[in-house]
Amino acid sequence: MSAHKFLVDIHTHVYLPRYANLLRSRSSVPLMRTTTTPAGVSEDRLLILDHEPSGGRPVGPQYWDREEKLKFMDKHGIDVSVVSTANPWLDFLPASEAHTLASELNNDLEAYCATSPSLTSNQYEIKRLYGFGLLPLVPKITTSALLEIVQQISTLPHLRGLIMGTRGIGNGLDDEALDPVWAAIEKAGLVVFLHPHYGVDGKAWGDKDYGHVLPLALGFPFETTTAATRLILSGVFDRFPSLRILLAHSGGTLPALSSRLASCIDHDPVVASKLKHDARYYLGKFYLDAVAYGPEELGFASDVLSRANAYASGATEPRVANRTVGSQRMLFGTDHPFFPPLSATEKWKSVTENLEAIDNVQGWTEEDKAGVRGDNALRLFNLKE
Amino acid sequence: MSAHKFLVDIHTHVYLPRYANLLRSRSSVPLMRTTTTPAGVSEDRLLILDHEPSGGRPVGPQYWDREEKLKFMDKHGIDVSVVSTANPWLDFLPASEAHTLASELNNDLEAYCATSPSLTSNQYEIKRLYGFGLLPLVPKITTSALLEIVQQISTLPHLRGLIMGTRGIGNGLDDEALDPVWAAIEKAGLVVFLHPHYGVDGKAWGDKDYGHVLPLALGFPFETTTAATRLILSGVFDRFPSLRILLAHSGGTLPALSSRLASCIDHDPVVASKLKHDARYYLGKFYLDAVAYGPEELGFASDVLSRANAYASGATEPRVANRTVGSQRMLFGTDHPFFPPLSATEKWKSVTENLEAIDNVQGWTEEDKAGVRGDNALRLFNLKE
Repeated sequence: MSAHKFLVDIHTHVYLPRYANLLRSRSSVPLMRTTTTPAGVSEDRLLILDHEPSGGRPVGPQYWDREEKLKFMDKHGIDVSVVSTANPWLDFLPASEAHTLASELNNDLEAYCATSPSLTSNQYEIKRLYGFGLLPLVPKITTSALLEIVQQISTLPHLRGLIMGTRGIGNGLDDEALDPVWAAIEKAGLVVFLHPHYGVDGKAWGDKDYGHVLPLALGFPFETTTAATRLILSGVFDRFPSLRILLAHSGGTLPALSSRLASCIDHDPVVASKLKHDARYYLGKFYLDAVAYGPEELGFASDVLSRANAYASGATEPRVANRTVGSQRMLFGTDHPFFPPLSATEKWKSVTENLEAIDNVQGWTEEDKAGVRGDNALRLFNLKE
Repeated sequence: MSAHKFLVDIHTHVYLPRYANLLRSRSSVPLMRTTTTPAGVSEDRLLILDHEPSGGRPVGPQYWDREEKLKFMDKHGIDVSVVSTANPWLDFLPASEAHTLASELNNDLEAYCATSPSLTSNQYEIKRLYGFGLLPLVPKITTSALLEIVQQISTLPHLRGLIMGTRGIGNGLDDEALDPVWAAIEKAGLVVFLHPHYGVDGKAWGDKDYGHVLPLALGFPFETTTAATRLILSGVFDRFPSLRILLAHSGGTLPALSSRLASCIDHDPVVASKLKHDARYYLGKFYLDAVAYGPEELGFASDVLSRANAYASGATEPRVANRTVGSQRMLFGTDHPFFPPLSATEKWKSVTENLEAIDNVQGWTEEDKAGVRGDNALRLFNLKE
């Protein structure tokens, strides 16, 4: 009998109680407030974006209650979750407050994970919850404060990485001021989960009311793509070749644009001269979640990762013609508790669609699929204790 | 012996002499000006975007001289080009001037094509140049002026479509005020070539100098994706199901985001209720140029087109497991005279890369590839006279 194959969710969010309380205390976005529905029911609503349509989204205990996370996992056969604070993290806080809160939330998340149930396989024991910590990436923060928190995260045994948005300390992730932070993260072996929040300027969406569709479906992936591209262009991967960055939503649109990016760089000798490799090489530096809702999308993303090494400067190896190489850097995720189903009893489509997508990728072997469902996460986050 | 297979370039631009003269006469962007290089050589520079880096791009007769277009075609074995005015078209002009100039430029382009050399196959005669006309899509233009120009284009025998940007008459392409225009275009059987110009707000690109790379590599496809998505969300394809829209740069990032788009719509019942089909169905309404610089990109785009009909409301047909269906809506293009080579003698990489990409798509038959290189264009633009 083969060993049980784990299903590991690496894109799953929480607002820890301390953070939820902060949101409740605020009068400007981001905030959470309790309203009364026309039917007289008390309801919490979350506003995390400026100009949020329809008075914010209804939220409930699935956002902060660990039992709800475990129930969701049980309902969908998810063995292990690597949990991260949802956007907008600490972006809106002054530096000293962000610093203190990052430290406290990292300790909270460590306790959240450390006291979670254990699973026992025939080979090793594993917790059901692990976490991505938080850095106080806000303007005016000191490098030493950032390095202190990287150090903290690296010593908390159930935190295996950190989640960050795209603004860095105010100038984006291609800011040289972050180099000591990348160096420390690389050295500590922490995985950076790069996640969008701001989208792009809302004027692009026009005047029609399409709810959250445009900022979520397009703005989020555009933001991730832009941040990842700026990382590439800034030479971060040339300076920190062992950095491990996991991109949300299957890399946004970076896989689809990587050859166009390479072509544009190729036609600009000044930009090209600053990089060691063709842009497509750097795609192979990323890890991608498998939150793309379709098998063709996942297969294509794995193509782009698979071919990356053929674009190393001076590479003589042919382009890899199978998708296995790329699949090994892709990892199942759900985006829970966002995208809830329209009725409480249903399984979440965001889960079932993403699992079906993995199952239906042409050219992925059963082993590749098991990798994306969980084995890659076990390896990347070193979960086999 | 099999018949000669045509190579047809459907993404190739021109600034007709009348338009180039207008750009020369202007003192604000867009404009063209003659400068002297440090070596004492006189050089034309084109500025089409605000805040354009490096004083604009050098331009020469390949932008306005028909002989240069034909020489480029001969050099690369391109039999036929379907030429379009490059961005920003007439977007910057007051309505009356845009109206007059559209009419004049359409007549100019008709003459440019009608007096071009002919090719004779064993079956039919064909010109080497055809064109996309221009509409005066600017604020304050009247519907009757737009309809008059649609009518003009439809009567000019060598114009087979029209090119447009993403702003419509100021409120984007999801503006109901354009419904009579879509109706007229649909009725006339003209192909709409939807092309970006504005990108997204430049604040997203940060402070570092990466030349044109970010606005061209990312901003352009983001803009196209947003415009095409807003078209879908507005129900244009439900109201005008025979509309034929060709998206620049292989649809930008729309193929990569279509399942995410479908998921976001699915989780918003109000938006979903306004559409007849799953978002992925509408992907099959588009034609895509094959300007994506990589075989994996083209193969994926064809996957997304191939599967579209399986997402029709109530569809029972299985997802198409081959890429042929999608390939039939994809068409070779070069983006000439943009992306010139770094030396004058070279073949243009933008041509050779896109041809190699077509050649290397896994799952495309020789017939599919011949379709993308030219046969699909012959059919779409009805070029077999």
